[in-house]
Parts: sequence; structure tokens; C-alpha cells
Amino acid sequence: MSCRPPDASLSRLLQDHASERPRDECGVFGIHGHAEAANITYLGLYALQHRGQESAGICTSQGGEQFVHRAMGLVSDVFSEKVLARLPGRHAIGHVRYSTTGESLLRNAQPFCANTDGGPVAIAHNGNLVNAGAVRRELEGRGAIFSTTADSEVIVHLLARSRETSLEERLIDALSRVKGAFSLVMLTHDALIAVRDPHGFRPLVLGRLDGAWVVASETCALDLIGATVERHVDPGEVVVIRRGRLRTMRPFPKPARGAFCIFEYIYFARPDSNLPGSNVYAYRKELGRALAREHPVQADMVVPLLDSGSVAALGFAEEAGIPYETAIIRNHFVGRTFIEPAQSIRNFGVKIKHNPIRELLKGKRVALVDDSIVRGTTLNKMSTLLRNNGAREVHVRISAPPTIAPCFYGIDMPTRSELMAAGRSVDEICEAIGADSLGYVSVEGLRKLSEHLKHDHCDACFSDEYPVPIQRGDDAPQLSLFKPVGESSRDEAPE
Amino acid sequence: MSCRPPDASLSRLLQDHASERPRDECGVFGIHGHAEAANITYLGLYALQHRGQESAGICTSQGGEQFVHRAMGLVSDVFSEKVLARLPGRHAIGHVRYSTTGESLLRNAQPFCANTDGGPVAIAHNGNLVNAGAVRRELEGRGAIFSTTADSEVIVHLLARSRETSLEERLIDALSRVKGAFSLVMLTHDALIAVRDPHGFRPLVLGRLDGAWVVASETCALDLIGATVERHVDPGEVVVIRRGRLRTMRPFPKPARGAFCIFEYIYFARPDSNLPGSNVYAYRKELGRALAREHPVQADMVVPLLDSGSVAALGFAEEAGIPYETAIIRNHFVGRTFIEPAQSIRNFGVKIKHNPIRELLKGKRVALVDDSIVRGTTLNKMSTLLRNNGAREVHVRISAPPTIAPCFYGIDMPTRSELMAAGRSVDEICEAIGADSLGYVSVEGLRKLSEHLKHDHCDACFSDEYPVPIQRGDDAPQLSLFKPVGESSRDEAPE
Amino acid sequence: MSCRPPDASLSRLLQDHASERPRDECGVFGIHGHAEAANITYLGLYALQHRGQESAGICTSQGGEQFVHRAMGLVSDVFSEKVLARLPGRHAIGHVRYSTTGESLLRNAQPFCANTDGGPVAIAHNGNLVNAGAVRRELEGRGAIFSTTADSEVIVHLLARSRETSLEERLIDALSRVKGAFSLVMLTHDALIAVRDPHGFRPLVLGRLDGAWVVASETCALDLIGATVERHVDPGEVVVIRRGRLRTMRPFPKPARGAFCIFEYIYFARPDSNLPGSNVYAYRKELGRALAREHPVQADMVVPLLDSGSVAALGFAEEAGIPYETAIIRNHFVGRTFIEPAQSIRNFGVKIKHNPIRELLKGKRVALVDDSIVRGTTLNKMSTLLRNNGAREVHVRISAPPTIAPCFYGIDMPTRSELMAAGRSVDEICEAIGADSLGYVSVEGLRKLSEHLKHDHCDACFSDEYPVPIQRGDDAPQLSLFKPVGESSRDEAPE
Amino acid sequence: MSCRPPDASLSRLLQDHASERPRDECGVFGIHGHAEAANITYLGLYALQHRGQESAGICTSQGGEQFVHRAMGLVSDVFSEKVLARLPGRHAIGHVRYSTTGESLLRNAQPFCANTDGGPVAIAHNGNLVNAGAVRRELEGRGAIFSTTADSEVIVHLLARSRETSLEERLIDALSRVKGAFSLVMLTHDALIAVRDPHGFRPLVLGRLDGAWVVASETCALDLIGATVERHVDPGEVVVIRRGRLRTMRPFPKPARGAFCIFEYIYFARPDSNLPGSNVYAYRKELGRALAREHPVQADMVVPLLDSGSVAALGFAEEAGIPYETAIIRNHFVGRTFIEPAQSIRNFGVKIKHNPIRELLKGKRVALVDDSIVRGTTLNKMSTLLRNNGAREVHVRISAPPTIAPCFYGIDMPTRSELMAAGRSVDEICEAIGADSLGYVSVEGLRKLSEHLKHDHCDACFSDEYPVPIQRGDDAPQLSLFKPVGESSRDEAPE
Repeated sequence: MSCRPPDASLSRLLQDHASERPRDECGVFGIHGHAEAANITYLGLYALQHRGQESAGICTSQGGEQFVHRAMGLVSDVFSEKVLARLPGRHAIGHVRYSTTGESLLRNAQPFCANTDGGPVAIAHNGNLVNAGAVRRELEGRGAIFSTTADSEVIVHLLARSRETSLEERLIDALSRVKGAFSLVMLTHDALIAVRDPHGFRPLVLGRLDGAWVVASETCALDLIGATVERHVDPGEVVVIRRGRLRTMRPFPKPARGAFCIFEYIYFARPDSNLPGSNVYAYRKELGRALAREHPVQADMVVPLLDSGSVAALGFAEEAGIPYETAIIRNHFVGRTFIEPAQSIRNFGVKIKHNPIRELLKGKRVALVDDSIVRGTTLNKMSTLLRNNGAREVHVRISAPPTIAPCFYGIDMPTRSELMAAGRSVDEICEAIGADSLGYVSVEGLRKLSEHLKHDHCDACFSDEYPVPIQRGDDAPQLSLFKPVGESSRDEAPE
Repeated sequence: MSCRPPDASLSRLLQDHASERPRDECGVFGIHGHAEAANITYLGLYALQHRGQESAGICTSQGGEQFVHRAMGLVSDVFSEKVLARLPGRHAIGHVRYSTTGESLLRNAQPFCANTDGGPVAIAHNGNLVNAGAVRRELEGRGAIFSTTADSEVIVHLLARSRETSLEERLIDALSRVKGAFSLVMLTHDALIAVRDPHGFRPLVLGRLDGAWVVASETCALDLIGATVERHVDPGEVVVIRRGRLRTMRPFPKPARGAFCIFEYIYFARPDSNLPGSNVYAYRKELGRALAREHPVQADMVVPLLDSGSVAALGFAEEAGIPYETAIIRNHFVGRTFIEPAQSIRNFGVKIKHNPIRELLKGKRVALVDDSIVRGTTLNKMSTLLRNNGAREVHVRISAPPTIAPCFYGIDMPTRSELMAAGRSVDEICEAIGADSLGYVSVEGLRKLSEHLKHDHCDACFSDEYPVPIQRGDDAPQLSLFKPVGESSRDEAPE
Repeated sequence: MSCRPPDASLSRLLQDHASERPRDECGVFGIHGHAEAANITYLGLYALQHRGQESAGICTSQGGEQFVHRAMGLVSDVFSEKVLARLPGRHAIGHVRYSTTGESLLRNAQPFCANTDGGPVAIAHNGNLVNAGAVRRELEGRGAIFSTTADSEVIVHLLARSRETSLEERLIDALSRVKGAFSLVMLTHDALIAVRDPHGFRPLVLGRLDGAWVVASETCALDLIGATVERHVDPGEVVVIRRGRLRTMRPFPKPARGAFCIFEYIYFARPDSNLPGSNVYAYRKELGRALAREHPVQADMVVPLLDSGSVAALGFAEEAGIPYETAIIRNHFVGRTFIEPAQSIRNFGVKIKHNPIRELLKGKRVALVDDSIVRGTTLNKMSTLLRNNGAREVHVRISAPPTIAPCFYGIDMPTRSELMAAGRSVDEICEAIGADSLGYVSVEGLRKLSEHLKHDHCDACFSDEYPVPIQRGDDAPQLSLFKPVGESSRDEAPE
Repeated sequence: MSCRPPDASLSRLLQDHASERPRDECGVFGIHGHAEAANITYLGLYALQHRGQESAGICTSQGGEQFVHRAMGLVSDVFSEKVLARLPGRHAIGHVRYSTTGESLLRNAQPFCANTDGGPVAIAHNGNLVNAGAVRRELEGRGAIFSTTADSEVIVHLLARSRETSLEERLIDALSRVKGAFSLVMLTHDALIAVRDPHGFRPLVLGRLDGAWVVASETCALDLIGATVERHVDPGEVVVIRRGRLRTMRPFPKPARGAFCIFEYIYFARPDSNLPGSNVYAYRKELGRALAREHPVQADMVVPLLDSGSVAALGFAEEAGIPYETAIIRNHFVGRTFIEPAQSIRNFGVKIKHNPIRELLKGKRVALVDDSIVRGTTLNKMSTLLRNNGAREVHVRISAPPTIAPCFYGIDMPTRSELMAAGRSVDEICEAIGADSLGYVSVEGLRKLSEHLKHDHCDACFSDEYPVPIQRGDDAPQLSLFKPVGESSRDEAPE
């Protein structure tokens, strides 16, 4: 029914979900050689909005100058026709951001822009660098002045200081110095450059539109603008598009194995996107089927907990031959703040957003399907609520393995100690969430299902096996020593 | 999955849907004898938000005084803790409004308040009066000064001028003078009064919470606040609650037949609400099943067009034994304005919100289910879009009869000439929307399905048989002769 | 230097002055027969902004319809080109308001509009009715529904219920029922009507512009639009302008004496306006001269306290032959809120707005001139501040008699008990404000000076002699029993 | 009467005056060792608001960290109690800015902050660097990334890259590289540093408050917070305050002569401030006297044109023995935008703000005094307006020499070609402004009057003699090659 939890569709709700849901951090887009570069980039970001709702920005290039607009908010709020009209040029890159590192500040909004003696450059980055703190401290020691608290800014400084001659060589030089995840687009006065880190953590896809070249985090952005999908950018590949010509390089040493984020398939990407090897909707439906085979259930109906789990729930229902019912109704008007009455109403918190249909549930055994348990609070309240509305049994099925380890490559998750599944057995979790039974897809099941994708994955959040080692002292990136207190942040403007 | 189209969940989207969707006009709520009357009313309105997103208001009563706050916007925007704290008292009524008559103005926001020599009164009204214009003109001729352009205000004036002694007698006197639909709540200094018009066009339900009495347009409002449902208010019933005691009257002549709006079951009410005789979700699922029996189809998948049709689609799929697939992905971040590129993108308008999953559709026969065709534009674009994404056949099934006549009792529909189905055969419509086949539930099928509800309905929009005659010169209510130009309306405030 | 205290020029500052300064309540404007009626009215209100900064409104008439826009805020904020373009017609009236009775609410913004069986009417009123509460209670008893809490609304209801035939007769009928001050303009579908109450409390002037007729509270409004001043409307006169023709009536019994508000000359009106008998600047300068003669002083410099007293100070300085020095510097950027440090700074409150020039004051005797002492707080702080900055002596001179009684005819003053001069001798006040000497213009001096104006005055605030008796129980107008809590008021919108 | 033109007091009006008035660019403030450092800095900036209304910022230091808040707008809008509470520490610097170089952007708001290997630093700068473009280009060539378009940022980069050991040595090293005007304050983790450039273009004063050290652009800031004035910082002096101790250095070569901006006395500084050698009010009054001696006039009254000229006008009137009359009344409510009627009103533009008092002017000879003629447009309209209101003769007297050359050291003036007096004789100007006679203070007169100040001045704008040579290719500072289009600027936010 939906590519994203409908609550995600309400930007206001995002903070409510911070405690329960991992969040993808960024989406990037680029176009080279189109008369409406800014407008098309706007549309591309629009389709990638689910990858970041905090800030948005577009930078264009024309006649040796670059033009940029960045602001806090959704793409549709940040850009007006007036603003887009002031972004001339045939080349553009864009970025939507949800902060994983760096504070929530306008200054951190991307693309980042800089003047170099090779001309102006702009960079938009998806992913998380694991050695950003150390590199930043070293650069500051050499007189570099950082204007943001985002890890991505180190790439810009490394590039500006590189002794290589061409801007693409300087970018490669800079990227050789950093570790971690980067799917990025860079705009120079005449070229669009797209790069994926050697492990290929984050997606990046190449397309064509009316003779122009397009790059985007997901294929759904190409669909919206009517572009054709050319191919995915390879891990470690540097694509340089200049004067309509595409040139490709593979300058980085190849790592032992690839590490495409499996969570993109399970949760992050839009179901209508195609990731390498599979359509996302199809993958999720298979995951639901696999779950039904691994953990069969005697139930009267299969109910998706949130829209995020609904595709897996459909697969589960089909495989199990149990009717699929959307028995929990959402209030789509939930606002940012909510005034609670002083007198307690039972299960108030969860009821404000969900109302189970008692007539449907009365005396029934429910298989409740979702795609992850992060902290478990919502599930616990929901199983209580279902029982209060008549459900006889509540069997929880999760279309992913237990999340036991944090992500250091660009996904905002709770710390290890906050993760429900870290250090708890499935039985303990089942008890904690008040379910009659609980089943997860196994890591093995997930890996088996993913074999047909034909490339290596990172499933560190499920397996605790990190493809790029984390220096523990470094995993909390060293933020700037000066603390902006509310500058430009909408919420904090003085009344 | 959802009680309302998720786009409806974004108030910003409402105007986009004006052309395609009928809109319910109002929700009312009242509580008598609760320490947190204003807070509970706020919650009740919250649950009724789908019935009106234009303005919201709450009026409370304490010590002979009434306190009111009304503003344009969603309940969560209109009320803050600070505002609620300034609404003291144990009795309250509230209102959410989408304008069907009267302009979109703060002045029209309800509840309406007035001082009478019997004390202050406040009224919140759901429904449309068919003789408001004539009554208003007559009252103005006798020196009444109207401060709004809403039809409901005539009730307040009639009440204020009534010669009856008690306020409830005066209300009954006033209501005897008007014709059409009214489910209303009225607050005096010490009483809460709830009334349904003799035909019972609009719903109104009675409940209890911690010893207090509650009235609301739908049961979902009672669910949220944890109240128990007592019973539906009867057509023509006047319920007076004073000092914790409920008294009931049936002062109006009983009409030949009742006229509960069947559209409440089909589209308006939240699926988790129980309307007289049935739960809404269950009703819609049966409607889907009936549709599958009336118009079977050879298809590979059943796809809901919008969330509004998803429950019927589930019923259809079950009855037909065809897999249910949410093959059209929504962009949940669609904003109010959208900047279109100058160069045309194929099917741009519909793609901005929907992306069909090509991998799923390729070579497949699709049964596309929705709950109504109002103007037909969206369906036409969608069937083209599905074919462009590989669908081999597109069979449209509508879980209601053709909408052939406008509503005069409180639902905002296009005029007759704008209705797709008015004066067109099903074949003509099928061709106009570009479908391979088209099937509607028949009026007979609908009536048969609704028999078990055990009360009379109004299905004038499908049958053109109006239970309360419309004087054609009167159906466009006579608005005020003075034209407020933008006063207080958010959109029109000078920049 | 200025027509109004420069702080008055900052609307934000107004509340700071509430405790010290009486405030004029309203300005009215009307035009009949001009192609740009709305634009010209906008300009007229602009020039009358000093008479009310809380809300502004314009109503125009065209082809039997009226168009209105009203909002909280300054004229320049309330009206945009877009809004003015939506106010068509050749006739218009406008209003600026500072609330003296009635709460601060959008609903109270004027002009008031109503439909009558004689067509639509709009009314804009300057002045205060002393029997509004009693009339309102009576009208409510007869079924009238008030939509504002302003006293002016009773006129509209009386008019709507009048049995007279023409609208002008109905207005006269209505005005015969009220007591107190009214300078008002009324717009019908084809006529502009201007009326002053029989005592003539408030000013109203008639002018011509390009063949059109204009009415305004003050001549400065005619100056701005380039109109010529025709004459002042007489006390008790009703001027009806229809189809370009002016007709005059004097339907009210003539009172024993007139009662033009002397405070208009002393403080309210803009110094560039001409009131009946004198230019305001010239009058104030004479007042300063008279003050110097009544209360000579040995001083080294004459210093105006606020800009409001500067014209009188100039006259004082000239008459006394003492240099005039603007020795107290204002901070013109004082904002609405001010964050005070926790540690006390000496005389912080007054210093935030005023800084005396120590180099100028050192060892000098200062004659400090202002036009009134209402509560005395500012003067006390200022005399301390002057001494702290080196002044040897501080002699206070006030260009008006002591304010000993409240105003019931339209000026917002403290209640009697809050008035500095009520029940205190001049010596007591002198001590309270910490001055070396204190001199007021005497009531006799004021009356003598005003003889050349050749009409009767109301000086009740100085003499306690009220021209229209006040029924003490009625002087606090009976507000509505329902309490709007923040509706539409800008400050109270939920965040 | 006023320290600044009252219109300047309305920030909204600023743009209207861009064409007529030079504008001061910045104010700086610093405090070391006070428990309420942020609050006191807020007050200090408040008193310096006339020096810059575009943006404001405060940076504080505590425990090795710095905290900063910067935003577009007036001090009172930018800071709330909540924001100030989040700025802890006993040391602070602040800045108010009107942009002279660099675009109007939040990113350009000061203080600038940076991390160095010596810890965090923040800098607030008043003045204009004449070689900023060249230095910036060189730094960018060496890999520096600028985040603003302001010339002041080069100081921060030079400091960050300096090889000196202590932060104060690095600052001195950086400042040795730049040319032009700088009165700046710098905050390190433990020290407050204040510097004036060797020519001493801009003021900077040192004071004490409760044992804390304070620095500010003008003494009026010290007056407001109750601090005592210690002394002016010397040209070329570096004052380092650490652990309560003040240390002073004079590291820069002494130039042949000083160059204190004479315009600070004539127009910029608040009249209650004391600049080196004189109180500003006293200086201006003497200037008015000198003007009366240089250019006597036969007139009936002396009228100040704007408040900016009022002190000189008082001096002129006293010296000439002619009465001083504030015969031109200002409308203090003039808003940002103004809707002009389509039909022309005579002298509409100037009348919207000024209304001359005809009764006062009729048949009189007027000496109109102002402090400068920049483009002359206003004066021309005003002399016409005075004649239309009855003035027989209009003699213009200017309390400064003709402005013939632009300023490169920090004052925003029209370019040479736009200056009224550049290349025109006094007679030509007199004719252009429509005056009966025109007199300026001569450069010689100004210099003679300024002798008693006992230090060298820059009067380049009057004499075309620049104390620091301007490389013509460099005077338009080289802005960044990337163009932010509206980011964070209030006016440009998409609707």
C-alpha cells in the first residue's frame, strides 16, 4: 500500500519515531547537460525525500559560477519557483539530509560548496565516514577552518588541499584518505562526478534523460523524472561526466569483499525502487514468505503493524494462506505535539495514532508482522492494545533478523545498549513485548534469500560483523568545539 | 491499512483532491461533567479530524460564562496547552469543519456562540440546511445581523428570537423551522444538548467516560478517549444532559422514512468506527466481495487505487481468489505546491504522487479497485500509467454505484454537470477512463447489502431520489451580501 | 520634531506606555465617488495611524455589494496591493482602532458590516458610548446576537431593528438611543454618511478630492491624499453624500453646551492637523508659552522629556529665553520584549530607552517639560537619572493641568485611583517625582488659552466636570458573557 | 531629540534611505570576567543597534568550549531569554552588522568562529579591509575554504594558518597581512583581545563593570550597562585581557598620520556617545554654529530636515538668533512597503513620510538644516513641498562639507558617480535641489573645528585624500564564486 510508514510521510512525526526506527540519512541526485537542471534535481530530491527530511539543497553550475540554495525542511518547503528560477545552468546536484553525524543545523545542509584554485566545487554525500574525527583534527591543526559539524566536510577540505592537478584527481586523492561509506556526487564548473566507496555501502544509480546524464540514490527518482535506468554505479567506481561524455575510473584498492547495506532492501529504500539484483517490493514479499516458512503460525489473520511491514505481511499471508487484514487503523492527522489529558487513558500513547478494529479482532488469533524491533516499546503497547480489543492470541513475526549492533556507515540507530535484541534471547524479547510467540527471519535465512542478488552485503547490524573496522574511540565523530545554539534551526528561533 | 486516503492525511493535499473526492463537512463532539472537558474534547476532535480540516473550535462552560477558541487549521495546530488551559469548566463542545456552505473564513469556524436572555449558548452543527437562504433573508428583514456566511448561523438566530422559555424548548422551536440535515450539539451554562434531524442524515453517538456523558459524530472518537459506546442518538431525538442526568425527547414529526447517509459507510467514516448496524471496515469488505460477485474479472492481481479503496479491494481479492498487491507506491511527502518542469514529463501529474512497480506489473492483468469515480481524471491517468509500466489489461472495479446526483445534505460534491457518471453509460465511462472493463456495485446490490443495517438510507447521490425535497432556487444558499476579502484566512494574509 | 512620541512610532512600544499615557482610540475615514476609493482610504488611514494601532479595516461598496478586509496590526501590515485590489467600488470607509472598550480581538476590528432589508451597511465609529452595556443587554433580551465585544456594535443592531424606512433615518433613530461620543462614518450601497454626536466630543472633518467627497478624523489625512479641507462637521450634524450631492441634517436635540475633547489639542491629534479654531502645533507652542508665564523657572536649559512634549518645550524655551536642548537621547530600536540582566543595573528600566548626555547636563539646572503626568513613574526615574548624570536641579513643567479624572468618552486612561494627580496636591506630586519644583498649566489658564477656539470643550479629565452624566454602574461596559480565548489575536496563536 | 534619524529607528525604513544616507556598518562589544557575560553583551549590542540592523550575534566561552548564536534581524528579535540562557560563560563578544562588503546572508553574520590547534576562537570586526580580495584569492589557492562572502573572514583564515605560537601572536601576524580599517574583538577560551588598526579608522572604547573588563564601539553601550569609561583603545594598540589582567601591545608600524573617521562625529555615532576629544552632541552643535557663521541667512525660522540634522540645526538657530521650529511632521508609522494610488498625488513620495505645517510656514523664509546631501533627491522634493505649503524662501544649510568621494574603510556610500556633490559646483547643486541659497561647512572649517579633538582624521569622503591607498582593481572585494541564492535570508524564503 505504501513505500514508507505513513507516519514517515508526516515529517512532524519523525521525532516520535526516533526511538523506534532506524533512519536513513541522505539522498543524492545529480544531472549533467539538461536545460532544466535545477527543476529536474528538485523532482529527483522529491522522490528521494524518504531518505532525509531535515534539510534540502541544490547547487547548479553555469559559466564558471555556482549557485546554491539550502534550507531546513522538506523539499517542497525549501524550494519555490522563485528560488529555482535563481538556480541557472545545465548541471546540478542536490541533497536531502537527515543528520546522522553533525548537529541539526542549516550550516550542515548540503551540498557543500568551496572555491579552489581549480574553480568552484560542490559536493553532496550519502554515507558515514568512520575516521572523520581524526582527519578533521589533523586538518584543523594545519589551519583548516570548518564551518559545519558534519563529517562530510572533511572531504571538501582534503580536496581543497590536495596537490593533484585536476579536480577529479583531487577528489580521488581526498577520498583515499577517508574510510567508511560514501556515495557522492560532485559538481565542478563543467563536470558531474559520481563516486561509490570501494565497499559500495550505499546505492547510486546512473540514468539518462533526453540526452542528459543523471545519477541518483534510487531508481524511484529516475522513474519520476521519466529517465531510463542505465546501470548501478559500481563499488569503488568514479564516474566523470564532462561535455556529455562519461568516463569511468576505478582508482581505489578493491577490498576483500563488498558491503552493500542489506537494510536498504529490508527497510530503507522505496519499494518501487530497484536495488542491485532485485526490486525492493519483490524482495520484501519474498522475505515475508521466508518468514512464514521459518516461523509458521496458527492464526486467523495477518495484520501489518505499520505500513513499513505491510509488503512482508502480504508475502507472509500468501505463503501461510491466512487472510490479510489491515485491522489497525491509523490516525493520519497526528501532529507534532500532542496534549495529553491529566487523567490517564489506558494505552493513550499508542492509541493516539492507532485504533484496532474490535469487531474484526474479537476472539481472533493475530499474526502481527513488522520489519524490525528496535527498542520494542511500540510492539509491547500494541500487543496489549490488540488484546484489549479482543484478540485471543498475538503472534509477532519480524521480517528481518534481530538488530543487535549499531551501524557506523550512515544509519541512525540506537546505541547497542538501547537495542532490544542486543544481549537478549528471542524468548526474552517475546516476553518483553507481551507476545504469544515471536519469530525473526534468521541471519542465515536472510543471507540465503539474498544470494540471488549476486553481490556481497553488510549485515553488521544483524551479525555484528563489520566490513570496515571501527576504531572505537573514533566512532563518535569529533564535533566542532564551538556550539551553535539554535542558529537557523527553525524550532529554536526566538519567539 | 488506513481509514482515510493517506493523502487526506496531509491537509496540504486537500485541495488537490477537491476535484476528485467528495468531502465530509464536519465533526462534532460534546462532553458533560468531566474535570478535563476541554482536553477530552480536544482528543475527540483529534479522532474526528478526517471529517473536517479547515477549522477547529472548542467552547467550554463554567459558572455561567462560556469560553471559546476557534481558528483555521488542524486540531493539533489550533490548540496548544496554553490555549486549552484557558478553557475552564466541566462541560464542553467542539467542532471540526470543512466548509460545504459558507466561505472559508475564521468567522465561520464553529462552535457559534451567542448571549441570550437565558444565558450564553454555543452550537456545533454537522449537516446542511436546505432552506437556510430563505430563513436568513427573512431574519435579516427583521433586523437580525449575521456575522458569518455559514448556514448553521440561522439556527442560533432562530433560537435567540424564540419565545419559548427554556433554552432546550427554544432550540426545538428553532429546529422546527429548518429543513435538511443536522446532527448538532449545544452547550448552555449547565446543559449539553444533542440532536439529530428527523431523517437522521448524519451520525451521532452517545457514550460514557468516568461518569461523564459524551456525544460524538463517530465511535472512533469514543475509542480514543477510552469512553464506552452507549448507543446511537435516534433520528429526531433530542437528548438533554443536565446535572449528570440524561433526558430524552422526540419533539419533531416523524418523516415517512429515515435517510442515513450511505456514503458514511462507503467512504466518509473511519473504518474503525461503528455506524448504526455495522462496523465500517466490515461493511466495506463486504462491498468488495459483492463487487467481485457482481463483476467478476480475469486478473493476475487486485490493486487498490488509493488507500480509500483498499478495504473493498481486500474483500474483492478474497472473494475473487486473486492476489492483493499494493503495486502503486505513493510519495507521502507530496507538498501543497509543486513546481513542474517546463519540458513535459509523461504523465507527470499523476506520477508525482504515484509510482507503479513495473517489475510487478509487467505483462499482468490488473483489477484496479476504488470506491468512487467522481470526475474520472485520475483514473484515466492511472490506467495509462499502469499500461506504460507494463500492465497488459486494466479492469476497473468501483465499490459503489455511479455517482449521478449532487448532495444537498452536507457533502461537498461537484455539481451535476461535473459528475463523470451523470448522463453517461458505464461503457462510455469505461472508454473515458481508458479501462479494459468497468464494473460498479449496482444500486440494488448496495441496497441489498445494506438491508442488514436495519434502517433507511439516503442514497440520493446514486439514485437521484432525495428524501427531503430541494427547492432548486434555494439549493445554493444565499450568502451574505458583504464579501470579506481574505480576513483571517491564512492563505490570504498580506505578505 | 515630531507629531507623536517617537516611541508611539514603534507600535511595539505601545504597551510599555500604557501605564503612563492616555491613548486615543480610533480614527475614521470615508470617501464617496472616487475611482480609487480603497487606495485613498488606505492612505487616509495611514495618516491616522497614530489614532489606533491595534487593527485596521476598509469596506467598499459596489453594485449593491460590500467588500471588507479587517485584520489586527498596522495599516501597512494589514493591507497589501493584492488585498486592496480585491476591494472594488467608488465609495469606501475605513477605521483604525485601539481598543478602549471591547477586547483586543479580530472580531472587534471595524468597520462593522451588516445586511439589512435596506441593503448592506458598514459603520466605522470613533468615540465611546456611555450606555452601551444597558442597550446591549436589552437588545440581547430581544434576540439580538452580538458577534463582538465592542460598544459600537449596538449602533448596528439598533439600526437593523429600526422601523424607519431609509437607512439614514434608521441610523438617526439608532443614534438617538445611545449616549456619549460618536464621530462615525457609514457606508450604504450608494451613500456615505458622516455624523458627529451633539456634544461633538471627537473631531471629524470634511474635504474634497478630485470631485469626490472625503471625511476624516483629522486634517492630516486630507493633507496626505492632497484633498482640500472643506470644513469641520458640526456637532450633531448628519451629512449624507449620495450621487455626488451632499445633504445635511441636524436631527438631534442640541445640548446645553458643546464638549470638544481638549486633549485632542494637548496630546492626541497630530501637530500638523488643524482642529476647530487652531492648528495643533501652534496651540501647543502657545501652551508652552503660557506655562512659562504661569510657572517661570531659573534654569540653564529646557529639555523635552518625550517627543510628545517637545512643541510645548519649544514654546516654553522661547518665552523663557532659555536654550532648548534635546539632552535625553532615545534608543529608537527598543523592542517589544527586553531581557533584563539578573544583576541590577541602576535605573535600568528607564535607561534602556533614554540616555541623558552627561557632558551637557553636568552642573546645570534643567527645566524638564512634558505634556502630562499620568502615573508619574517615568518622571520620577527620569529626574533621578538626570541627577545621576550631573544635573544640579530638575524643574518639571507640565503643559496641561493635573489629570484628576478618567475619561468615559473614548480615551483609555488609568482609573481614578491610579491617576497620580487624583487626590494629591502639586507639592505632594513634586515630591513623589523627585523634582526641585513642579508647575502645571492651570485649568483657568487652559480655558483662557482655549477661548480663541470659539467653541465649548470637555476638560473633564482636568476639571472632573462631565458634560454627559455617567451612570456609575454602567461605566464599565457589560462585555459579552462568552470569552474568546485568543482567537485570531496574533500574540496568542498557539506556537 | 534623537541620536539617529527616527526613520533609522524603524528597521523597515532602512532600505528607503539606502539611496540618501551613508550607513555605518558594524558595532562590536566584548566582556571578560562577568557572571552575566551573554546578557550584558546583549544589552551592549542593544545600545549599538544604530551601527547595524541586519544581523546580530553573540559568542561566549566556557571551559574550553565556545557557544554562539547568530541570526538575521534586530538584537531584540535575534535573542530571547531562552537563547541567552544557552550561552554560558564569563567571557563574551558580540556583533551587530550592516553589510558593507559581503552579501546579506546569515552565513555572514558575525562573530566568526573557528577551531584552531590553539583552541576555539571567535572574532567580531568593524571596518573594511581594502586588500581582502587579493588575500582571499591567495588563501583559496592554498586550500582554504571560505564559508562566507565577508571580507572579515580572511582574518580568521590568516590566524588559523599562522605559525606563531600563542593565539594573540597569531592574530597580530594575521592583522599584519591586511590593510584598511579594523576595530575588532576576539575571544579565545580564556582571553578577550581588542585591536584597533594603526590608522584608528573606527572607534573602540575600554570600560569596567563590577570588576569585569568591557570593550565597545561607543561609550553609549557602556552607559546602558552602567559601566565606567576607562579610555579609548589607541590606534594600533592590541589589548589582551586574560584572567582579569589587561596587557597592552603596539606591534604594528606606526603610520605617518592617524585617520579617525570624521563621519562618526558628524553623522554615525549616537549623540550621547563621547568620541575621542569630544561629546558627539556638543560637536554637532558647534558644527551648526560654525555653519551659521560661514553661511549666515536671513530667515524667519530654522527647520531641521530630518532628526539627523536636528542637533546642528539647534546650534545654527542659537548662533543665528533665529527661532527653531520643527515645522515638518514625520509619520512614524511608515512601513516597509507602500501602496501608491494609481492617480498621482502631488509630491506623494515625500508626503507619505513628511507633512509640513502650512500654518507655520505661510509667507515665511525657511533655513532648512541637514547633515549631508548624498544624492539630493529628498532635498529637492522637500523644498518643493515647503513652497507648496506656503514657504516664501527655502535656504538649505548642510552641517558638513560636500560629499565628493566614496568610503573604502567601512561606510556604505553611493559610488562616486551617484554622489550629488561629485563634479558639481555648489551653485549647480543649489539649483538642482531648488533652494534659494545653499551653504556647506567648508573642509577648512571642519578641520579647524576638529583641531581641538587632538588627533588626525580621515575626511576622504569630503577631501578625496585617502590615508590608505586603494588599489582600484581591488576596491570591489572579490566575492565568492558560488552564489547563495536566498539561503536563510528572511526576504527570500519561499512562501
